[in-house]
Amino acid sequence: MRIKAGIVGGSGYTGVELLRLLAHHPDVDVVVATSRADAGKRVDETYPSLREHVDLLWVAPELSALSDLDLVFFATPHGVAMQMAEALLAAGVRLIDLSADFRLADPEVWAHWYGHPHTAPQLLADAVYGLPEVNRERIRTARLIACPGCYPTAVQLGFLPLLEAALVDTGRLIADVKSGVSGAGRKAEISMLMSETGEGFKAYGVAGHRHWPEITQGLAAMAGGPVGLSFVPHLLPMIRGIHATLYAELTQSVSSLQTLYEQRYQHEPFVDVLPPGSHPDTRNVRGSNRCQIAVHGPLHGHRVVVLAVIDNLTKGAAGQAIQAMNLMFNLPESSGLEAAGLYP
Amino acid sequence: MRIKAGIVGGSGYTGVELLRLLAHHPDVDVVVATSRADAGKRVDETYPSLREHVDLLWVAPELSALSDLDLVFFATPHGVAMQMAEALLAAGVRLIDLSADFRLADPEVWAHWYGHPHTAPQLLADAVYGLPEVNRERIRTARLIACPGCYPTAVQLGFLPLLEAALVDTGRLIADVKSGVSGAGRKAEISMLMSETGEGFKAYGVAGHRHWPEITQGLAAMAGGPVGLSFVPHLLPMIRGIHATLYAELTQSVSSLQTLYEQRYQHEPFVDVLPPGSHPDTRNVRGSNRCQIAVHGPLHGHRVVVLAVIDNLTKGAAGQAIQAMNLMFNLPESSGLEAAGLYP
Amino acid sequence: MRIKAGIVGGSGYTGVELLRLLAHHPDVDVVVATSRADAGKRVDETYPSLREHVDLLWVAPELSALSDLDLVFFATPHGVAMQMAEALLAAGVRLIDLSADFRLADPEVWAHWYGHPHTAPQLLADAVYGLPEVNRERIRTARLIACPGCYPTAVQLGFLPLLEAALVDTGRLIADVKSGVSGAGRKAEISMLMSETGEGFKAYGVAGHRHWPEITQGLAAMAGGPVGLSFVPHLLPMIRGIHATLYAELTQSVSSLQTLYEQRYQHEPFVDVLPPGSHPDTRNVRGSNRCQIAVHGPLHGHRVVVLAVIDNLTKGAAGQAIQAMNLMFNLPESSGLEAAGLYP
Amino acid sequence: MRIKAGIVGGSGYTGVELLRLLAHHPDVDVVVATSRADAGKRVDETYPSLREHVDLLWVAPELSALSDLDLVFFATPHGVAMQMAEALLAAGVRLIDLSADFRLADPEVWAHWYGHPHTAPQLLADAVYGLPEVNRERIRTARLIACPGCYPTAVQLGFLPLLEAALVDTGRLIADVKSGVSGAGRKAEISMLMSETGEGFKAYGVAGHRHWPEITQGLAAMAGGPVGLSFVPHLLPMIRGIHATLYAELTQSVSSLQTLYEQRYQHEPFVDVLPPGSHPDTRNVRGSNRCQIAVHGPLHGHRVVVLAVIDNLTKGAAGQAIQAMNLMFNLPESSGLEAAGLYP
Repeated sequence: MRIKAGIVGGSGYTGVELLRLLAHHPDVDVVVATSRADAGKRVDETYPSLREHVDLLWVAPELSALSDLDLVFFATPHGVAMQMAEALLAAGVRLIDLSADFRLADPEVWAHWYGHPHTAPQLLADAVYGLPEVNRERIRTARLIACPGCYPTAVQLGFLPLLEAALVDTGRLIADVKSGVSGAGRKAEISMLMSETGEGFKAYGVAGHRHWPEITQGLAAMAGGPVGLSFVPHLLPMIRGIHATLYAELTQSVSSLQTLYEQRYQHEPFVDVLPPGSHPDTRNVRGSNRCQIAVHGPLHGHRVVVLAVIDNLTKGAAGQAIQAMNLMFNLPESSGLEAAGLYP
Repeated sequence: MRIKAGIVGGSGYTGVELLRLLAHHPDVDVVVATSRADAGKRVDETYPSLREHVDLLWVAPELSALSDLDLVFFATPHGVAMQMAEALLAAGVRLIDLSADFRLADPEVWAHWYGHPHTAPQLLADAVYGLPEVNRERIRTARLIACPGCYPTAVQLGFLPLLEAALVDTGRLIADVKSGVSGAGRKAEISMLMSETGEGFKAYGVAGHRHWPEITQGLAAMAGGPVGLSFVPHLLPMIRGIHATLYAELTQSVSSLQTLYEQRYQHEPFVDVLPPGSHPDTRNVRGSNRCQIAVHGPLHGHRVVVLAVIDNLTKGAAGQAIQAMNLMFNLPESSGLEAAGLYP
Repeated sequence: MRIKAGIVGGSGYTGVELLRLLAHHPDVDVVVATSRADAGKRVDETYPSLREHVDLLWVAPELSALSDLDLVFFATPHGVAMQMAEALLAAGVRLIDLSADFRLADPEVWAHWYGHPHTAPQLLADAVYGLPEVNRERIRTARLIACPGCYPTAVQLGFLPLLEAALVDTGRLIADVKSGVSGAGRKAEISMLMSETGEGFKAYGVAGHRHWPEITQGLAAMAGGPVGLSFVPHLLPMIRGIHATLYAELTQSVSSLQTLYEQRYQHEPFVDVLPPGSHPDTRNVRGSNRCQIAVHGPLHGHRVVVLAVIDNLTKGAAGQAIQAMNLMFNLPESSGLEAAGLYP
Repeated sequence: MRIKAGIVGGSGYTGVELLRLLAHHPDVDVVVATSRADAGKRVDETYPSLREHVDLLWVAPELSALSDLDLVFFATPHGVAMQMAEALLAAGVRLIDLSADFRLADPEVWAHWYGHPHTAPQLLADAVYGLPEVNRERIRTARLIACPGCYPTAVQLGFLPLLEAALVDTGRLIADVKSGVSGAGRKAEISMLMSETGEGFKAYGVAGHRHWPEITQGLAAMAGGPVGLSFVPHLLPMIRGIHATLYAELTQSVSSLQTLYEQRYQHEPFVDVLPPGSHPDTRNVRGSNRCQIAVHGPLHGHRVVVLAVIDNLTKGAAGQAIQAMNLMFNLPESSGLEAAGLYP
């Protein structure tokens, strides 16, 4: 039986990426796509790249249009999914939220970073953090998935083998991460004009970024205790791609970091450990659901440098959401996600 | 029965695009990929985007490795296919040449524009120009396909309805075309460094470009007589995409240019006439085999302006070659080419 | 005696370009810069590139702050300068308007293209169109300058020698022009996000663009009669630069187009005719006030192709305004405009 | 008396940047520019951005053409300056070497990193490392300047106040640095094509980069002892600009990092400490000789994050060389370097 899916907030970049990837998924039909601003307009008028791929009109995000679906994706700004989730779950709809609403276990922490109270704290205990490399079995049976953020995906996959093996000083982790501009979404802001982002590069949010609590929550779970993480995000003059450069210090000797990473990820369909000495390039995963990782070290004694790349809209958002969906509906995990990246 | 295919010159950009698209084609196995420079090396070492998609080593371009295949693609510089074609055809291999070797019917014209004699003029009569929108039936039975150039594809598809309907002054055609840098191939040239091509824009080849005789040959066939075409190519500071801006003058009244275009292309799977007033954007066909076209006019009396966009590596090269292959082997014409473009 | 100048609308891209260029002009002090939104804030907080170059606070655009200046530049959206011009002129301030308010001689035409009535039609007769290559002497004594638009500068300089010499069919002019995104200004619009403009290319405004009446007005004056012009603007995936590709048809023979252009511009400090066969590149005029031009032809009989490049913010706006200012105040015409372009 | 200067290796990007900046320097005439490949050709044929700014022909790099000059800049690959330096110094010419030949004090270290012996080790003791913020007085009297590399400039200026004040753990320094592609020079390499560098991002040289020994030598001098530095360079999809993100750990409390930085650099004409909480953007120093720095911290207890941006061709190469020249010839230190950056 085919899955009937809906996308709330379909007109943003993660929404259109969901529509692109699901257009040819063998087992899913997207039957509802909502956009308050564009309701009544054809989806492919907004996105001509979807002409002859998606034959839908945008509709307003009403519960009534969503409650008889098998699955709803939220590709909305934070604060939306938490308003609609309880009613949809009660109607038997499974939910995959690509926003931040259900990523943090503690509603107080959420309120601190997002500036207003969490309105559905009662659902947090049942929400499953949708990183298959960590939570695969829990995802299969989940009714509510909190899809990881783009930075958190790259950083957690990069540190995971080191932390699980308890090899590094967990108080001295550094994540210097760089993202293409599509990560900032499809919002009219002067700071995201091409004249303000092309041909230039800068850090932002050094004093604090909302992905920091999400990442530290995940790393702490891997490490079995609190971690000290410096996280500095930067904005790249390009559209798609995240590159995480991760620094850690070994606290014990290890025979081969390369082997550690290869073994940890040997059965993972979307994590690809590159040969020793490699430098992953975001261009090699553009449009694909893959994370490519290289591990370097020990350097200068005890330093480990991990390089991890993803496409922020695919493995960092829509692709990962579909990977979770495949697990939830007992489909092949790679279904609809097989395509190679677009190079050059 | 599955098709066994080879790619000669697989390490250039049209080669890697063929490998990307064919990796998941349901009826084709690429079993040979040649690269003289990289012979012995893994294909996915050269192109990490193909890891877990292509499991081949590059081999040298020897006839012996190719002559038992069903099909060979040439993704080589001009002058290579003409050396190997006769022997391969004699061995029963069907050929799709993405280079310029068999595009021009007259070997003297070829010699004039390419600077040395054509070495296989005896094959020209059997070569079929692989533009399905013009030559679909001949492609089905062809043994040797000359795949159109990237500029010629966009320009011919843009002018086709006007010329077939004999509506415009054929002596006053103008094609102002713009291409991303991947059209220049993967060659070490100072002029193609990012410092020389990023954040800048220029024309080139105003005095004469090798695609001019190819385009005029095609347009003349559509018009049933000689055409006068000014063709000015430009280099865009981006990687993929061609935009053709075409100018013609109506010589008679026409009830609706929009209808003319829609009717001409209504059964074409890869030519998409946009609604009236549209401005096609190369970003909407990135990585897809689609040509999107808008027709504007009459403006200021008798002027017609046609806007046509393609991805130069897909509909302008590898995708179009696969479209031809599908026709030659009696497969669904869109097989392996269904994916939507990568947006944003 | 030093010139006291003000800039109204200083926080847009033409405003900051004026501030950059005037910061080191030997005879001018910018003493007022207005920005309604940023009033009270330091100019170099908005534009850190101006730190230690500009020591001003933004002020609100009040007449009282401007009426004792020698000169005011308007770098505002259309409709602002026409509200303030009369009072400032009455106070003895000379004005250089970089907006469209005084470019069109006929207020009815203005109203048609800009959608509301012109509120200062009585000033149009005294406004001088600030293209020094055409109007140098009138600029010297003008009290109100209408600075040409960016596209109109490139197109008019490109066609000028042909039209003055009455060599071409004035009914069949074509201007296929391409602009970097800074031409669209510093406004929060989704369509100008880097995700929407990077790595892609499209035409816009084919059915009609506000620069069309300005250009045709100028070309008609050169030709001594009405002209027929097709004008198609395009958006380049880069920040600065305009490239005009111009097409015309010779109506009589000419001994040397190259000589025609070289002679016409031999005394022009900012128009540079490149050697025969050249292809000007916008990168060679980035940040400079220069227009580089190449003329090709006759091609295919009677076709002339002219290629002209400028930096849209410099020769296409702020630099040209300063060139006019230098003329108005009897300074060396190149004062403050000597720097070479930034390459690469 | 005006300074007569020559540039050896003028046709690379640091060479053309020297020519651009010196074209309007009030006290210097560039009278010789060498390029073996282009000898006999006009400089402005190679670089049309210099038309009407530089009226020279390229000549071959012969000692005879250089030995009567006051000053010679080497903008050559490593290994060239060391061959010509002794003879030119003997002829009384002062030298500023922008290559790596005289940056490392120990010729054995040089040989290790550059792969062949140093051929002028006898000159190393007299070579002065041309970072004015550290060596201003020695530069004034130097006869041979080793101009710092681009990465080393940004990293050293960023760490300098912390190390001089002995505030941080010198064994745990991290420099995560990102550079535009012009830093790789003007060489025909496939890896630097726009198709390989645009719209993508990667690290390189993690296992070892030639700037590491230069940086550690400089940092050790500041710290008064050996330092442990992890240095990871990355390639940005843009042309000009370097961004250094620097991480250190405080070993003692400090009342205000902001004040420390502001005081250290208060008299420096080209180092600009931004207000607290700032994120410097490479776009704000494009084409300027300025380094903009922000210091953040302490974060999460004892972490300091320093952000430093320069234009790699200006403060990271040609501008810094001119700054040194100004000091050597007793000119105002900012002479010829006053221009604001090109924004946007």
